[in-house]
Amino acid sequence: MIQSEKATWPEIKTAIEQNRVAILPFGAHEEHGPHCPLSTDTVMANGLATRLAEQVDGILLPPIPYGETWNTSGFPGTLSLSFSTVKAILMDLGVGLMKSGVKALIVVNGHFGNRAPIELACRELKVKYDFPVLLIDYPGLERLASEICESQPAAPSFYHADELETSVMLALMPDAVQMDKAQAEYPDFPPTFASEPIYLHTFCKSGVFGDPRPATAEKGEKLLDGLTQESMKVVTAFLTKL
Amino acid sequence: MIQSEKATWPEIKTAIEQNRVAILPFGAHEEHGPHCPLSTDTVMANGLATRLAEQVDGILLPPIPYGETWNTSGFPGTLSLSFSTVKAILMDLGVGLMKSGVKALIVVNGHFGNRAPIELACRELKVKYDFPVLLIDYPGLERLASEICESQPAAPSFYHADELETSVMLALMPDAVQMDKAQAEYPDFPPTFASEPIYLHTFCKSGVFGDPRPATAEKGEKLLDGLTQESMKVVTAFLTKL
Amino acid sequence: MIQSEKATWPEIKTAIEQNRVAILPFGAHEEHGPHCPLSTDTVMANGLATRLAEQVDGILLPPIPYGETWNTSGFPGTLSLSFSTVKAILMDLGVGLMKSGVKALIVVNGHFGNRAPIELACRELKVKYDFPVLLIDYPGLERLASEICESQPAAPSFYHADELETSVMLALMPDAVQMDKAQAEYPDFPPTFASEPIYLHTFCKSGVFGDPRPATAEKGEKLLDGLTQESMKVVTAFLTKL
Amino acid sequence: MIQSEKATWPEIKTAIEQNRVAILPFGAHEEHGPHCPLSTDTVMANGLATRLAEQVDGILLPPIPYGETWNTSGFPGTLSLSFSTVKAILMDLGVGLMKSGVKALIVVNGHFGNRAPIELACRELKVKYDFPVLLIDYPGLERLASEICESQPAAPSFYHADELETSVMLALMPDAVQMDKAQAEYPDFPPTFASEPIYLHTFCKSGVFGDPRPATAEKGEKLLDGLTQESMKVVTAFLTKL
Amino acid sequence: MIQSEKATWPEIKTAIEQNRVAILPFGAHEEHGPHCPLSTDTVMANGLATRLAEQVDGILLPPIPYGETWNTSGFPGTLSLSFSTVKAILMDLGVGLMKSGVKALIVVNGHFGNRAPIELACRELKVKYDFPVLLIDYPGLERLASEICESQPAAPSFYHADELETSVMLALMPDAVQMDKAQAEYPDFPPTFASEPIYLHTFCKSGVFGDPRPATAEKGEKLLDGLTQESMKVVTAFLTKL
Amino acid sequence: MIQSEKATWPEIKTAIEQNRVAILPFGAHEEHGPHCPLSTDTVMANGLATRLAEQVDGILLPPIPYGETWNTSGFPGTLSLSFSTVKAILMDLGVGLMKSGVKALIVVNGHFGNRAPIELACRELKVKYDFPVLLIDYPGLERLASEICESQPAAPSFYHADELETSVMLALMPDAVQMDKAQAEYPDFPPTFASEPIYLHTFCKSGVFGDPRPATAEKGEKLLDGLTQESMKVVTAFLTKL
Repeated sequence: MIQSEKATWPEIKTAIEQNRVAILPFGAHEEHGPHCPLSTDTVMANGLATRLAEQVDGILLPPIPYGETWNTSGFPGTLSLSFSTVKAILMDLGVGLMKSGVKALIVVNGHFGNRAPIELACRELKVKYDFPVLLIDYPGLERLASEICESQPAAPSFYHADELETSVMLALMPDAVQMDKAQAEYPDFPPTFASEPIYLHTFCKSGVFGDPRPATAEKGEKLLDGLTQESMKVVTAFLTKL
Repeated sequence: MIQSEKATWPEIKTAIEQNRVAILPFGAHEEHGPHCPLSTDTVMANGLATRLAEQVDGILLPPIPYGETWNTSGFPGTLSLSFSTVKAILMDLGVGLMKSGVKALIVVNGHFGNRAPIELACRELKVKYDFPVLLIDYPGLERLASEICESQPAAPSFYHADELETSVMLALMPDAVQMDKAQAEYPDFPPTFASEPIYLHTFCKSGVFGDPRPATAEKGEKLLDGLTQESMKVVTAFLTKL
Repeated sequence: MIQSEKATWPEIKTAIEQNRVAILPFGAHEEHGPHCPLSTDTVMANGLATRLAEQVDGILLPPIPYGETWNTSGFPGTLSLSFSTVKAILMDLGVGLMKSGVKALIVVNGHFGNRAPIELACRELKVKYDFPVLLIDYPGLERLASEICESQPAAPSFYHADELETSVMLALMPDAVQMDKAQAEYPDFPPTFASEPIYLHTFCKSGVFGDPRPATAEKGEKLLDGLTQESMKVVTAFLTKL
Repeated sequence: MIQSEKATWPEIKTAIEQNRVAILPFGAHEEHGPHCPLSTDTVMANGLATRLAEQVDGILLPPIPYGETWNTSGFPGTLSLSFSTVKAILMDLGVGLMKSGVKALIVVNGHFGNRAPIELACRELKVKYDFPVLLIDYPGLERLASEICESQPAAPSFYHADELETSVMLALMPDAVQMDKAQAEYPDFPPTFASEPIYLHTFCKSGVFGDPRPATAEKGEKLLDGLTQESMKVVTAFLTKL
Repeated sequence: MIQSEKATWPEIKTAIEQNRVAILPFGAHEEHGPHCPLSTDTVMANGLATRLAEQVDGILLPPIPYGETWNTSGFPGTLSLSFSTVKAILMDLGVGLMKSGVKALIVVNGHFGNRAPIELACRELKVKYDFPVLLIDYPGLERLASEICESQPAAPSFYHADELETSVMLALMPDAVQMDKAQAEYPDFPPTFASEPIYLHTFCKSGVFGDPRPATAEKGEKLLDGLTQESMKVVTAFLTKL
Repeated sequence: MIQSEKATWPEIKTAIEQNRVAILPFGAHEEHGPHCPLSTDTVMANGLATRLAEQVDGILLPPIPYGETWNTSGFPGTLSLSFSTVKAILMDLGVGLMKSGVKALIVVNGHFGNRAPIELACRELKVKYDFPVLLIDYPGLERLASEICESQPAAPSFYHADELETSVMLALMPDAVQMDKAQAEYPDFPPTFASEPIYLHTFCKSGVFGDPRPATAEKGEKLLDGLTQESMKVVTAFLTKL
């Protein structure tokens, strides 16, 4: 594994000649309750990306520390990129990697709102430039959550500042988690939640969805292990085709 | 000083209520010779931004680790954002800060190529949103370089992977500098250098412009001190007007 | 219910004064196997939209007969709009409705690929114009499919030219369905299917996903009834807030 | 003639292999007085397109039911696409047809406001993709109107909800025409009408320009016959060159 | 009349306070046969604009010397702006005039291809900024041509490098006209000429459409007088409304 | 030297076959104090471009009479193009020249604000079209000013409506200079001048920066001679490479 931000260009040149793929964590700068830091999604994406980079001996790129976080932008601290900016960042980096001779890119996404613009960029990179990009978006998360976590999510497949995310943060960056401030909130989701644009702060006070209190670093490690295993299945299939 | 990536949203809420300004380092992911890491411009911008954030007790945002680095993109490792993407990132963050109630933004730019798109965004943020943004772009650098550095720059006002940048990196992130690989290069600049787009790798082998060998951490500290002092003059004038 | 394409402008004027909401079906022009017509998604969206328009006594707009169908564009006959065009159409119509005095819009989406651009437009219509738009995207479909259909879907939540869609088409436009050509196909999904852009024709010959043969008009009616009921829960909540 | 919305993809595949050209009606959703429906331009364009499709045994695509109708957007019911959206729709469909192997496209335009954006798209499809597109925009209409209609148009070459359009609607969709509400209006055109953007509702009450009362289905058939003949001259010349 | 390019800003300030309107000639840089210069459309637009500026005592702006001339771009010398650039220029200048306090703008267009983008800009300036813009596009030209010119145009309403344009150039800039090289050409227009994008050089050798040989400066003066009179009718109506 | 606006297309055809390069002056329409005309930057750029065109026997294109002049747009008379419009104009003309067979373009820029968008266009023309464009932006101006002018500039490298510009105008277009109105102003630049967007009228009353009173035509000629010599060094190096 080579971490590009600490590497020099001749070291990257060698890594490219060795056919190593690039791995880009895409994070967010978003509220995660009164106990988790704004960088939670960035730290988590970077944590998984680091493990994958180790497994495939890849080139780990510095994470994008902002993402498309419109729906929590009513909470001070959240700073959102627009849809088109997220797409543009990935297009620029994808084209740059391709021109440098890197054979493929794996994007590890840490925030739901980034998914659609990243997918659109992946498609355009494939169609216009024939450059393969794989999007890893926490595969198997729902199963892992149900197996490892004790608390219920606030809604199906909805994990935000809860036991799951807090556990992973305790595993990756414990100093930035203030467990004494952790509190549970199971907000009532408006019936039109999935059907119209709704700011989360209009029905959730704390920014927590679920119960972070049972979180532990040990669970976090298990979750990361599980996510790494699930991701590697897809990554392996992707690399085999190159 | 509050580092937003480690802060929670209620902490940022308080900081905004205290009228603290935001500070954003804008970096790059760019070749810096065989001895300095690709993150050099990001680390340097972040270093100065941190000092300024301390002085004004500001909200330090996570640095953008990529920038507009077209002219070194012939070196493997350099990954460039396009002009429009740099501008879009700053527009998004500026609008987001304004909506959150932050009263002003200070951008600390670490890379020359970012300047034009950042300036364009600053202007649009002012005209469309009446949101004040200050761009700190290493004020007084030329004078400081001439006073503190022993070697000559490769061209007037052109400091790249040389004694100046290497010294600052030795002060900020010594582990990422490989002084044993430091070498001098004073390339012949093509006569049309400032007058047409030219990739730097077409006339410079190492990616070094000047002589990094006399670099020391001590000089780096002095440079940072000087840049901080010079920047604070502008920052103070800016804050006074708010 | 008033069907706008057959109405005159004074009739629409009256309808707007009566506070009726507008309903827009968004379809696609996409392969649906050798037995279902290219307009399948348009016909289905229009069918559900018509029922909803009847229930709320709304203004039914003419359906958009094309959609974002990139992933089946390898099949002749599929004609895809781009992401940005789908979004632009909805923006234009939303702004036009708002300026006409219509108080809200309900979009009934008939094709998965339209979802992301429609959601983006809904958000922009809300933020920039304060115009409420609800997106109905076959709520409860998975449960209804499992209750009413006999065959298994080719993948979870993936219904395309199968028993479900064919049944609805038999209920809505039986003349356009050629049941004698209906055939089953359960293709092997590539392991990276959800993680990178993949054209469906690269792993599916017929364009059918699942088994359309057990389809009947009766099942189609039941599905439409179920979808109408589920949709009305969301629609009612949406209208109540206006 | 094959109507694509009712066809399956294998049928379109065969049609393409037979070198059949595609025909796209481009309509509008626009006020046409108190007696003609909002879909008038769509119905008329589709009517002519159907006849042309029959003559050349072409692939008739589903009509676009909205168009660029800015200048009547002051009448409730008119819903306008923007210039760029009309262009984008045609670009997307043109590129899609080209990639599918269709050799050419004939666009039958039903509304004046669509002409400029369609022409721009035709040019771009030719220059960028070498894909031939013919725009049929009611050739010979002025001569036919003077020969077949009894009433005078409200302005030269200006036919809107008048005897001409109403006759064609009586031929194509008589149930949607309310002749009992037909009324004449010959508004005073402002002297700057052709020289600055002017909303039609600012000087025309009914949305009728001219006198629809002498309209008959028989005249409508004659007009359609005439338009078909005139169009076929251009279409034949176009197809001969392919 | 005040010619802005020779005026100082305090003089323009006074002119604005006197409520003078601005007048902008929009030209082209386009082939006009072997005898007329590339600036023909610019010179003609400027000539008419100057007369109108005198009549209304307006502020004459410097002409745009390039325009949208796609269809003659196969002739060396023609240099075309794109549709969007023409529109952007007019948007920028319109917004600038509005912000300066100028109450209205009259655009005198010298080239057919500019019409559509200028009209689009006029509309946007009206809708978004409530800034009135009048487009003068040689009103009454067809009648004047038939009364004053002896030769026939190559096609109805098609005047290019012929007796009409050459006469006006002889009146305005005789030194730039090489009458010894003037030659007639009446090309066969392709039957699809008005229906698909066609480069003019594919069916016209000289770039002349019609017969420039009977051109005289006297006819040019008459044409300019007639165009001025016709334009002033519209201009007067426009100014009266302000 | 051939001046394209007075040339015919066959003359340009010959010039292109002779491998002559094109030269485009890019000006501005901007306040230059109470004594210099709004076209000052256009006249100056055109003056230098004419001399360069003579030296290289090039094709001189008509100057663009507007530029990006945001920061003086608070003075009536200044009319600014936006950044993107300046870039678009140069892109269009560059692509047009390339398609015509012209081998290279030299842009002579007369206004600082145009520099960044022109540089961006030059880069895109190189990368996308492999079309070489040289930007001449008054090379050696600072040295020439210090040698030839008697007065001090208002700020380093800042020459606007001062002795330097007024002298060149006296050499090129003396009738448009009103020396009786010439006045000196040495405004206090705000400390954040180079670090945030600031309208010049907020700290400068006359629009003059420096002292125009010592200006003479003779100095203007010397300045033009010096600029021509300095420019020719770069131009010669540029042409040698073609």
